[in-house]
Amino acid sequence: MNKQETLRILQKIKAGDMSPEDALFKLYSEPFEDLGYAKLDHHRELRKGVPEVIYGAGKTPEQIIGIASAMRAKNQKLILITRMSAEAAEAAAKVLPLNYRETARIGILGEMPPPDGIGKIVVATGGTSDMPVAEESAVTAEALGNEVVRLYDVGVAGLHRLLAKLDVIADAQVVISIAGMEGALTSVIGGLADCPVIGVPTSVGYGTSYNGLSALLSMLNSCASGVGVVNIDNGFGAGYLASMINHKRGSK
Amino acid sequence: MNKQETLRILQKIKAGDMSPEDALFKLYSEPFEDLGYAKLDHHRELRKGVPEVIYGAGKTPEQIIGIASAMRAKNQKLILITRMSAEAAEAAAKVLPLNYRETARIGILGEMPPPDGIGKIVVATGGTSDMPVAEESAVTAEALGNEVVRLYDVGVAGLHRLLAKLDVIADAQVVISIAGMEGALTSVIGGLADCPVIGVPTSVGYGTSYNGLSALLSMLNSCASGVGVVNIDNGFGAGYLASMINHKRGSK
Amino acid sequence: MNKQETLRILQKIKAGDMSPEDALFKLYSEPFEDLGYAKLDHHRELRKGVPEVIYGAGKTPEQIIGIASAMRAKNQKLILITRMSAEAAEAAAKVLPLNYRETARIGILGEMPPPDGIGKIVVATGGTSDMPVAEESAVTAEALGNEVVRLYDVGVAGLHRLLAKLDVIADAQVVISIAGMEGALTSVIGGLADCPVIGVPTSVGYGTSYNGLSALLSMLNSCASGVGVVNIDNGFGAGYLASMINHKRGSK
Amino acid sequence: MNKQETLRILQKIKAGDMSPEDALFKLYSEPFEDLGYAKLDHHRELRKGVPEVIYGAGKTPEQIIGIASAMRAKNQKLILITRMSAEAAEAAAKVLPLNYRETARIGILGEMPPPDGIGKIVVATGGTSDMPVAEESAVTAEALGNEVVRLYDVGVAGLHRLLAKLDVIADAQVVISIAGMEGALTSVIGGLADCPVIGVPTSVGYGTSYNGLSALLSMLNSCASGVGVVNIDNGFGAGYLASMINHKRGSK
Amino acid sequence: MNKQETLRILQKIKAGDMSPEDALFKLYSEPFEDLGYAKLDHHRELRKGVPEVIYGAGKTPEQIIGIASAMRAKNQKLILITRMSAEAAEAAAKVLPLNYRETARIGILGEMPPPDGIGKIVVATGGTSDMPVAEESAVTAEALGNEVVRLYDVGVAGLHRLLAKLDVIADAQVVISIAGMEGALTSVIGGLADCPVIGVPTSVGYGTSYNGLSALLSMLNSCASGVGVVNIDNGFGAGYLASMINHKRGSK
Amino acid sequence: MNKQETLRILQKIKAGDMSPEDALFKLYSEPFEDLGYAKLDHHRELRKGVPEVIYGAGKTPEQIIGIASAMRAKNQKLILITRMSAEAAEAAAKVLPLNYRETARIGILGEMPPPDGIGKIVVATGGTSDMPVAEESAVTAEALGNEVVRLYDVGVAGLHRLLAKLDVIADAQVVISIAGMEGALTSVIGGLADCPVIGVPTSVGYGTSYNGLSALLSMLNSCASGVGVVNIDNGFGAGYLASMINHKRGSK
Amino acid sequence: MNKQETLRILQKIKAGDMSPEDALFKLYSEPFEDLGYAKLDHHRELRKGVPEVIYGAGKTPEQIIGIASAMRAKNQKLILITRMSAEAAEAAAKVLPLNYRETARIGILGEMPPPDGIGKIVVATGGTSDMPVAEESAVTAEALGNEVVRLYDVGVAGLHRLLAKLDVIADAQVVISIAGMEGALTSVIGGLADCPVIGVPTSVGYGTSYNGLSALLSMLNSCASGVGVVNIDNGFGAGYLASMINHKRGSK
Amino acid sequence: MNKQETLRILQKIKAGDMSPEDALFKLYSEPFEDLGYAKLDHHRELRKGVPEVIYGAGKTPEQIIGIASAMRAKNQKLILITRMSAEAAEAAAKVLPLNYRETARIGILGEMPPPDGIGKIVVATGGTSDMPVAEESAVTAEALGNEVVRLYDVGVAGLHRLLAKLDVIADAQVVISIAGMEGALTSVIGGLADCPVIGVPTSVGYGTSYNGLSALLSMLNSCASGVGVVNIDNGFGAGYLASMINHKRGSK
Repeated sequence: MNKQETLRILQKIKAGDMSPEDALFKLYSEPFEDLGYAKLDHHRELRKGVPEVIYGAGKTPEQIIGIASAMRAKNQKLILITRMSAEAAEAAAKVLPLNYRETARIGILGEMPPPDGIGKIVVATGGTSDMPVAEESAVTAEALGNEVVRLYDVGVAGLHRLLAKLDVIADAQVVISIAGMEGALTSVIGGLADCPVIGVPTSVGYGTSYNGLSALLSMLNSCASGVGVVNIDNGFGAGYLASMINHKRGSK
Repeated sequence: MNKQETLRILQKIKAGDMSPEDALFKLYSEPFEDLGYAKLDHHRELRKGVPEVIYGAGKTPEQIIGIASAMRAKNQKLILITRMSAEAAEAAAKVLPLNYRETARIGILGEMPPPDGIGKIVVATGGTSDMPVAEESAVTAEALGNEVVRLYDVGVAGLHRLLAKLDVIADAQVVISIAGMEGALTSVIGGLADCPVIGVPTSVGYGTSYNGLSALLSMLNSCASGVGVVNIDNGFGAGYLASMINHKRGSK
Repeated sequence: MNKQETLRILQKIKAGDMSPEDALFKLYSEPFEDLGYAKLDHHRELRKGVPEVIYGAGKTPEQIIGIASAMRAKNQKLILITRMSAEAAEAAAKVLPLNYRETARIGILGEMPPPDGIGKIVVATGGTSDMPVAEESAVTAEALGNEVVRLYDVGVAGLHRLLAKLDVIADAQVVISIAGMEGALTSVIGGLADCPVIGVPTSVGYGTSYNGLSALLSMLNSCASGVGVVNIDNGFGAGYLASMINHKRGSK
Repeated sequence: MNKQETLRILQKIKAGDMSPEDALFKLYSEPFEDLGYAKLDHHRELRKGVPEVIYGAGKTPEQIIGIASAMRAKNQKLILITRMSAEAAEAAAKVLPLNYRETARIGILGEMPPPDGIGKIVVATGGTSDMPVAEESAVTAEALGNEVVRLYDVGVAGLHRLLAKLDVIADAQVVISIAGMEGALTSVIGGLADCPVIGVPTSVGYGTSYNGLSALLSMLNSCASGVGVVNIDNGFGAGYLASMINHKRGSK
Repeated sequence: MNKQETLRILQKIKAGDMSPEDALFKLYSEPFEDLGYAKLDHHRELRKGVPEVIYGAGKTPEQIIGIASAMRAKNQKLILITRMSAEAAEAAAKVLPLNYRETARIGILGEMPPPDGIGKIVVATGGTSDMPVAEESAVTAEALGNEVVRLYDVGVAGLHRLLAKLDVIADAQVVISIAGMEGALTSVIGGLADCPVIGVPTSVGYGTSYNGLSALLSMLNSCASGVGVVNIDNGFGAGYLASMINHKRGSK
Repeated sequence: MNKQETLRILQKIKAGDMSPEDALFKLYSEPFEDLGYAKLDHHRELRKGVPEVIYGAGKTPEQIIGIASAMRAKNQKLILITRMSAEAAEAAAKVLPLNYRETARIGILGEMPPPDGIGKIVVATGGTSDMPVAEESAVTAEALGNEVVRLYDVGVAGLHRLLAKLDVIADAQVVISIAGMEGALTSVIGGLADCPVIGVPTSVGYGTSYNGLSALLSMLNSCASGVGVVNIDNGFGAGYLASMINHKRGSK
Repeated sequence: MNKQETLRILQKIKAGDMSPEDALFKLYSEPFEDLGYAKLDHHRELRKGVPEVIYGAGKTPEQIIGIASAMRAKNQKLILITRMSAEAAEAAAKVLPLNYRETARIGILGEMPPPDGIGKIVVATGGTSDMPVAEESAVTAEALGNEVVRLYDVGVAGLHRLLAKLDVIADAQVVISIAGMEGALTSVIGGLADCPVIGVPTSVGYGTSYNGLSALLSMLNSCASGVGVVNIDNGFGAGYLASMINHKRGSK
Repeated sequence: MNKQETLRILQKIKAGDMSPEDALFKLYSEPFEDLGYAKLDHHRELRKGVPEVIYGAGKTPEQIIGIASAMRAKNQKLILITRMSAEAAEAAAKVLPLNYRETARIGILGEMPPPDGIGKIVVATGGTSDMPVAEESAVTAEALGNEVVRLYDVGVAGLHRLLAKLDVIADAQVVISIAGMEGALTSVIGGLADCPVIGVPTSVGYGTSYNGLSALLSMLNSCASGVGVVNIDNGFGAGYLASMINHKRGSK
């Protein structure tokens, strides 16, 4: 609750429009009621006008359907269900008009919004195995009103693949760089791009990749400036952060 | 080198204004000449109109003075020397008009630019021990043309200190959240702010803080969305990234 | 065996009521007979008047039933079976009057005691995924004679949820703070509470949460004073320690 | 700020005794003024009637003297300066009536309070090298009004040393168990004591002790119940937590 | 793209045979068309005349069959499918003339080339459990035109086994030394061999072998000179590197 | 091959009883023939008169039966199969006179030898969950001709259990101390015993036990002297080393 | 205190020769008086007839001199001071008849005993840098009455050096194998020796040797049986354990 | 000792030219005499005709001078002293004709040989801070008879610097790729080069670079094939291995 809202409540008390006891309750509990959906696991409450997000991992199909139905009953226009298994999607599709993006493991209820960001978000990956994380980023960003350009399988082992797409990089407002193994892609893009780069290490690899640790350290130590890093495999977080950067504060 | 520059060279060949051999040389080596300062350790070359950056760690005062003098000879208007020791600053001040920010360990040659970003960058710290990293961020951001608001010593052990400054957070375009020990500040700010948050773990702490590892893991696992993380103690990188977010692509 | 007991034995020898050989045997082996239940895995022997505890992990349903039946034959009034699987519970329920708490994974035989502690124990969690650990703490504390207040899903990403319950925190004798991911909840509660706080990191999270390591380090490095930490997912240990703090020494 | 205080302010508004604007300012900033000492590094603000604590590490003698003098000017009766170097103590002693405890590295200004806790706090160590951490715990607990019993050099390699002092353990309200190397002392005491045990791993050892990691893991995995653990070498934190346990909530 | 190719394009522009716009496109995108097969996961593009490699892990039998069929349609004479499961091999064998090497988990399509390297590649293992990795190395090297000598189960616990084969070591152009557990074999061979030694740590072992970490550290710290190390279990990489060493640059 | 054997061969050459070529072959290859069983995974070849050992992990029942049958055909009187699954044992029992020790996971073919060591080997465990490792140690030691005394479930959480058995410890020639979790048992026994102590960390525990790492570090850092440590869960290795200590060199 | 001693005290009570109160005091405190030297850091109390040991690290020359003088006053014939700096030795030599072994960093007061063990202890090292640890082992073993054979600089990079000394290995009762870097020496010796081998990893090396971790893991994962491992750089512990093995129980 | 040498000795025995006892001594000890310099720390003995190598770290100037003088007395023509401090060099230069390469920290005695390898060795670095390691590689390779091309400061943050030198990469027989921080250079070079690439991670960086661990993991997980890795900062090892690859077996 910001100062303006607090001030308004206090003025109501002075004007006698509200009792101090009611104001006390309002001050502490109202935001909690408004944001009842904050009970959704692991994802911060989103602001009005943006999609609700249900973190699907560790929830039964029944639980997901229950939560989503309750949200729809409150006229929520767009709902994202992340980390949703194919099984859960199949069950949910029977009772809800679910649009399931299999690679992204995201279920969508409602209409995706038109892009209203400052520019484009480029989602680049080192290899095809990084695609589930990349699609989680891309669909998240699209659901938050961004135009997304996909640039998959441009890892540094075949540098020409990336160099052939320099114009795409040059045209981006934000780049989400997703890579497993040694994660060198993010440093290379960081050196080429003229905009913020969000590094997403993935758990792709074996042996000393240590489920993404190698890529994570690479990205944190990037010799290129302008790189911020999120948790391993956190496609949603990267898409969310990219959308924030691609919109003016408060607009989304 | 971007497409426009490449295209211009190719058109000169067609017009007969440049031989193919010269163009070849130009295509590969020119950016290298223009960006000779790219030899500076650890920091990506910055674009025209922005300050040059010399990474001072591991350089002798003589080397720093030599590089800076060469840059000034090329009419570079603003030069930053990061990780500059007090000793190096003292030596440099004898031969150059150095403005040394002791806490930030940054030496400045030339005039700082007026702010031209979209909004304000808030630099928040958990404790006073995080100030060197915070000042590195703040001075970097200022040198890149941003208005910076400092919010120091607002760690979560005394939550009222942060809550008393919610309006500052609410007014930010980007927040740089800097903390050592358990790094919980970044999650709390991430939950309160309505803009991108850049987490900077610091090596402040002892025992199991493991020189910033505890804070780093905290920030990467933040349950709040919209957080990107940089290397431990990397105040420069956070300031640089924040400036990119606070400017339109290409404007700085 | 304490000094008083030892002294009594020695006095019996002097009085001729006990032979030195018998005393020797008594001195070494008697406590072992009294505390035969100490053979129960991983959990220290509990004092008289308190429930017996069977660590159910890695035991077959048959073994659990056998041990519990033997205890009941010795008139033990209350028995807890921790880390008990649903399968083991189903089998045990056929032959024993088992009260199974599914989320806590605890089976109960006998009547739960009325609360006789100094005050209330608050069990707080960052998210709903932390509930199995939280319920293990809560049921353990209740079985040891404590009034427990549950405060679930009050993670710092939505700080208002916790702030709305400050009176509950203020009214606690001990707070058990349970969180996975970045574990910041414990620092925030540690900064707000005026009583001992027990931090329980959980293995909830993915990627760099490293199965609870991130939360563990956060809690150990808490910038708030008055925090003690137990092993990852050790809900039983936290409930046990909280009960000790909420009772006078020796009373339970 | 708790509900009662908030309510009082709101009632003043209704009564016309305070303008909404003033109330807004009061609501957010007042606790901050009252607790200005919260700026002290790394240690949570202590409540009224208890000593102020200055974290001395990383502060110059001048800074320490300045802060302490300011506190004394506000009539603070007892001030602790933790992690205070001998050099800082020597400098401070020239201008302040400093009582310096060399082993504990704690400087004291003012009178130590008489014990007013429920019972005794026992501070046990595995070896003599653990004494600096132990004294930090002991002096902290004494300054918070506790009777402290020291039980040093009772490590498990010579178990008879500990067994000879079982009556001391049996008489404690809380035991602080401090050990480096393999940290087994805490498990053994945890198995013998009938009260809460606080484990403090120390950085004593070499090779695979990894500066306290070995002892830390031992304590977290203790097969004895009733053990809470603090950060490596965190004698202050253990003393503070022990005092909380040894007092009724709010009394200290 | 090398200088000669670039120069040729630039000369075409000057001659008017190509427009600057077309040249720009050519400069960036042409290499990408030539090397379209670079889309194959995780393995660098191989040069003409050498086998194509499909990284089979994480691909469905259908995907593998599809890619392989497309390659064969382009007259590729030899195709390797690494990390191919028995299930995938069974399915592929129904529609393709697959030669499946079960231990190596490599499927082969086409004729293996005759050896054309400088000398022999020796593949040595510490134990029989290392054979899958060893065979991956051996078959890879054979497919790249090398004569391979297998020296399995010569671990240092029975040093006589290795000493009995010193002549084989002495006759090698490169030795691939493959071992799990403590990985000492590589140091011993490094001390005996008069040629480059490639160490491949394997995940064979238990407890503190940490899935190959122990062997990896051993090999990196080898007191013998002339040893290079690849990722844990990376038999393909070792075979590929060995082949490069056993051929003149560019010949294979 | 020792000096005496080498000398004998050389003398045969001089006497004309052996050609130099044959001698060369003999020198290098003969021990290899004698010790053909050295091909058995992971366990060093045992000397004549002692049992053969087959490391059963990762071998199919057919492979185990094949190797064991071949050994029996060479009149090997006693064969141990370690890490043998119940399934493999069931299959082997159909064709071989197998004596399967289920807890130890060891299959025995032939008669166990009578004890012929210097004294007794005590095998102690912290809890009942450590029994599989303990039995692997005990049966191994028995098969190598040692009298074994089992002392299970004497962990330090209930110290009286161990103190009640001090005479058993005092009577040992070697103690194998087996414990998971915090592994404190080994330090306590090391402080009480007057003979070599072999520490075996086990993977028993959860959370920060890190599959035995906590116990391993504890044992390596034991403040008691006279302790040697083996790999996590390596019951066989401990039994083998204990037998070596309990026999004169070369006798077994 | 063993059963016999306890029994004797109890019989005195029965005979009226001792009051129960005195007996109680005796039972608990007497061993503590006898073993007052147990206060010495980090090294378990040694039995009668063997040297006293003072752990010199972290003690001032004055403290060392004080403790040693007190011991000599009690007619202790042989005293070892381990981890003794050259400075401490120089100071001590002025007031005590100190025999200082510089490489071993051990100071000796009194006469070294003649060897009375079963056989010889071989101390082998990988390189000359391991000598300080090796000499700590060797001098410790000699002080405990063992004949020691030194076999330095026989690392596996030059295997011939070790093979040339096989007869020394074959003649040992125990081998202490000391190595840094990759620690392969211990596996090789473990495969060649017919007696217990004690592995001592050293902190010799750089980079991924991680101060002895690489060598430690190697030794714990040794594919050779009969190897026990002690802490990194723990030469004293290895010498002590070797002496125990080389003597009958209780004889030393 | 190879088979031919062994055979020759055996034939001498048969011919009566050598007694069996002498032969035995010869077989075991002769190589040891020939290779007496193998006592030099950490670096395997080099073959005849190549330089001797003294590992200077941890040796006093006196020791280095002594060893070098002894070698020169045996007519060794070229001697390298690696990891030689400036102080040691200054002292040695007073008594020996030392040529000291300061950046490489290598002292040279004697004439450097002319290049006799197959082709060129390229030594590339990510930044100027990697130069000490690079020069150690380069001078080592030169001393072993290789032509070396230096390509410094071509890190991926400014990719144009590397692309401008593609012809140098294309012309190499081996590339040594040296980088700290995120080590991405090695992957990029591995993707561009058509020859073996040796990755050398350096300890350059801060925070999560963990003294070279980040770069090491990157290189081990390189998505490019044909890369072998050596220990952190091991410039000597890389130069040695590169020379082996650039020469025919046995020629150097």
